[in-house]
Amino acid sequence: MLPGVGVFGTGSTARVLVPLLKAEGFEVHALWGRSEEEACCLAKELGIPFHTSRSDDVLLHQDVDLVCIYIPPSMTRQIAVKALGIGKNVVCEKAATAVDSFKMVTAARYYPQLLSMMGNTLRFLPAFVAMRQLLVEGYVGEMQVCDVRVYGPSLLDQSYGWTCEELMGGGGLHTVGSTIIDLLSYLTGARAHRVHGLLRTFVQQNGLIRGIRRVTSDDFCFFQMLMGGTGSSSSGVCCTVTLNFNMPGSFVHEVMVVGSTGRLVARGTELYGQRNGSKGEELLLGDSGWVGPEVKEMPLPHLCGLSSMVKALRQSFQAHEERRSWARGPVATATTFEDGLYVQTVVEAVKRSSCSGEWECVEIMSQEPDPNHNLCEALQRNKN
Amino acid sequence: MLPGVGVFGTGSTARVLVPLLKAEGFEVHALWGRSEEEACCLAKELGIPFHTSRSDDVLLHQDVDLVCIYIPPSMTRQIAVKALGIGKNVVCEKAATAVDSFKMVTAARYYPQLLSMMGNTLRFLPAFVAMRQLLVEGYVGEMQVCDVRVYGPSLLDQSYGWTCEELMGGGGLHTVGSTIIDLLSYLTGARAHRVHGLLRTFVQQNGLIRGIRRVTSDDFCFFQMLMGGTGSSSSGVCCTVTLNFNMPGSFVHEVMVVGSTGRLVARGTELYGQRNGSKGEELLLGDSGWVGPEVKEMPLPHLCGLSSMVKALRQSFQAHEERRSWARGPVATATTFEDGLYVQTVVEAVKRSSCSGEWECVEIMSQEPDPNHNLCEALQRNKN
Repeated sequence: MLPGVGVFGTGSTARVLVPLLKAEGFEVHALWGRSEEEACCLAKELGIPFHTSRSDDVLLHQDVDLVCIYIPPSMTRQIAVKALGIGKNVVCEKAATAVDSFKMVTAARYYPQLLSMMGNTLRFLPAFVAMRQLLVEGYVGEMQVCDVRVYGPSLLDQSYGWTCEELMGGGGLHTVGSTIIDLLSYLTGARAHRVHGLLRTFVQQNGLIRGIRRVTSDDFCFFQMLMGGTGSSSSGVCCTVTLNFNMPGSFVHEVMVVGSTGRLVARGTELYGQRNGSKGEELLLGDSGWVGPEVKEMPLPHLCGLSSMVKALRQSFQAHEERRSWARGPVATATTFEDGLYVQTVVEAVKRSSCSGEWECVEIMSQEPDPNHNLCEALQRNKN
Repeated sequence: MLPGVGVFGTGSTARVLVPLLKAEGFEVHALWGRSEEEACCLAKELGIPFHTSRSDDVLLHQDVDLVCIYIPPSMTRQIAVKALGIGKNVVCEKAATAVDSFKMVTAARYYPQLLSMMGNTLRFLPAFVAMRQLLVEGYVGEMQVCDVRVYGPSLLDQSYGWTCEELMGGGGLHTVGSTIIDLLSYLTGARAHRVHGLLRTFVQQNGLIRGIRRVTSDDFCFFQMLMGGTGSSSSGVCCTVTLNFNMPGSFVHEVMVVGSTGRLVARGTELYGQRNGSKGEELLLGDSGWVGPEVKEMPLPHLCGLSSMVKALRQSFQAHEERRSWARGPVATATTFEDGLYVQTVVEAVKRSSCSGEWECVEIMSQEPDPNHNLCEALQRNKN
C-alpha cells in the first residue's frame, strides 16, 4: 500500500514532483510553504487538501507517512531529522554544510527501519543506470578518466536569495556539482580522496541584484577528483568536472567515462558508447521520450531522473501491505544520507582548494565537531 | 620572388608540407632525413632533387633561402639557430626545453631581418582568425572562460622513440597542449601567469613498447591557466584544457570562449557563435572543404592551418623582388620564437604543477641559466 505524502517546498521541483507522485498513485495530503500565501497558492494549483507554513503541521499530519523535502539547503537538516524522529520516511534535498549532513546521517543511522534518501535523481536516470551496468560489465575496460561538463543559464533566482549566497548553499558547485560528485561515485564505485578546484563568480551583480548586494555563489567551477585507493598517485580514476552557468540559451549535460578498451558518453538523457577499434559511436539508449511538462529551471536529465525516482519509490512501497513499510530493492542504489555527507565533504574540500590553490584531502567527518571548540581554544589561549 | 626551400624531417608533417609548398609555387630544393635511406626514399616520392642526412648540406645549399624544420623537439634548436646564423629564413617546430627555446629567441633577436617563426598552424586556421576578429569586435563581451578539449587516438609512434619520452618532448601536453597554449594567448591577447595541471600516462606499455621499456610521456593531461594582469585573482580569463589521447577512433578538437554577452565555439575547422538572448547557435564559418589528402596522424585543424600558413608565407615572400626578403604583414600574427619560449615555459610550469600539486607561476626566462650553476652550488656546499 502506498504511503500518504507530505511535501515541503513550493519551488520548481516541488511543482513537478507532486504531479509525478500522483501519477504513480501516491496521495499528497499536505504541503508546506515558507509563507501561508505561497503554500495556499500552490496547494490550490496542485489540488493538495492541506497547506501550512508550520512544519510540524505536515510532520505530525496523521495521513503523512513519507515526507519529501525540497527546500533551500540551510533548512533541510532541521526538517529531515525531525521527520525521522517522528517516524516518517524521508526523501530530502541536500544540506548546506557537512555538519548538517552529519546530523542527518546520525538520525538515519538511529532509525534504520525508516527510508531516508537524498533527492539526487541522476542515479535513477535510465542512461546512468545503463552506464553503470555497462561499466560493471567491462564495456570500457579499466576506467581511466571521467570528464563531465554541465553548461547552462544562470542558477540565480529572480530575486535576491539563498541561490546568490555561497554560505547558504548557493552556486553551481553546491547545486549541480554535488549531483555530479554523487553520480561519479555511483558510476565508478569509488570515492574521491583528493580534490582540486577553482570557483569563480563572473556575474556579481545583474539587473535584479545591485546596489550593495553582490552574488557570492559561483557561476563557474572547475574541479578534479582523484578517486579510489590510497595507493600510488597514478592509481585510480581521474575525474574532471566543468560547470559553467554563464551560458543563457544553452544546456549541455555530458558525462563521459574513458577506459582502456572503450568509452561511454551520456549526453543529456541519451547514452552512447564506442569500443576501441570500432568505427564510430553506437547509440546505446535513446531519448526517453519525456512527455511531461518542460521546466525551465530543471534540465531534462534531472526531470527524467525525478520521474524514475518516483517510480522506484512506488515499487519500493507497493511491495508491502503496511503504509510505512518499504522494500530496499527498488531504492537500493539511491543516494543515502551517508552518500550525502560524502558529497558535502567533497564540495567543501573543493571550496577549500579554490581558496588554498592546493589539492585538498577528502576526510569524512566521523564525529560531530564540538560546538564549544572555539570557546575551549579561547580559554586555552587565556591560560597561557 | 619566392625563396627556395629546404625541408628538415621525413615525418607526416614534412610529407604534407612539401606538396603544399609546391602548390603555392615554392621550389623545394633539399630534404634532410635522419638516415640517408629515409631521406632518399621520401625525396624520390616527393620529387625533391637533393637529399642528405647531414644538416649542413641543406643549410649551406645555395638555392635554399627558407628552411622548414619538422624534426623531433630535441633537435630543432640546433638546426634553427645555425640556419639563422647562416642567414636563412626559418620556420621551426617546437623545441624540447625552455633553455633551447631561449637560445632560439636569442638567435632570432640577433637576426631581426630574417623570418623566424614557429610552426604553429592553428593561428592561421580561418576559424581561429575569424574567432579572434570577433573577440576583438566584442562578440562575447568581456571574456570569462576558455574551455578546450582535444581527444584523439594515441600519439605514440609505431616504434619506441621520442614520442614515448617525456624528457625528449613527447606527450600530449608538449605536442598538442603547446599548440593550444599558443592559440589561447593568440585568441585572448593575454598570457598565462599561473597554471595548474595534472598529467597521467595511462598506457605505459603496449604491443610494441614492452619489456623494460615504459612510456613516460603523458596520454592524459588537463590544466588550467589564469590569464592576464597581475591584479586580483578574480581578474582575467580562466582557461581549462583537457587533452585525452586514449580515444582511438575519435577526434575532437573544440575551443570555446565564453564571455559576458555570448560565446564562440570552434569545433574542428568550423566556427559557431551564440549571443546571449538568441535562440540557438549560428554557424559563422563552415567547413573549409579540405580537398587535400587526409593524414591519419594530423588532425584536420592542423592540416588546414598548415595549408593556410603556407599561403601566408607565399604572400609574405612574393611581395618582394629579392628571394630572401619578406613582408611582415601576411605573417604578422604567426607564432614568434618569443611566443615559443612563452609556450615552452607554460608547458614546463604545468609539468611542475603536476608534480608539486600546486599552482605554479609562469616566469619567462630573461637570461640563459648558467651551465655551471650546479657546479657552483656543489662548490658552495663543500665550502660550508
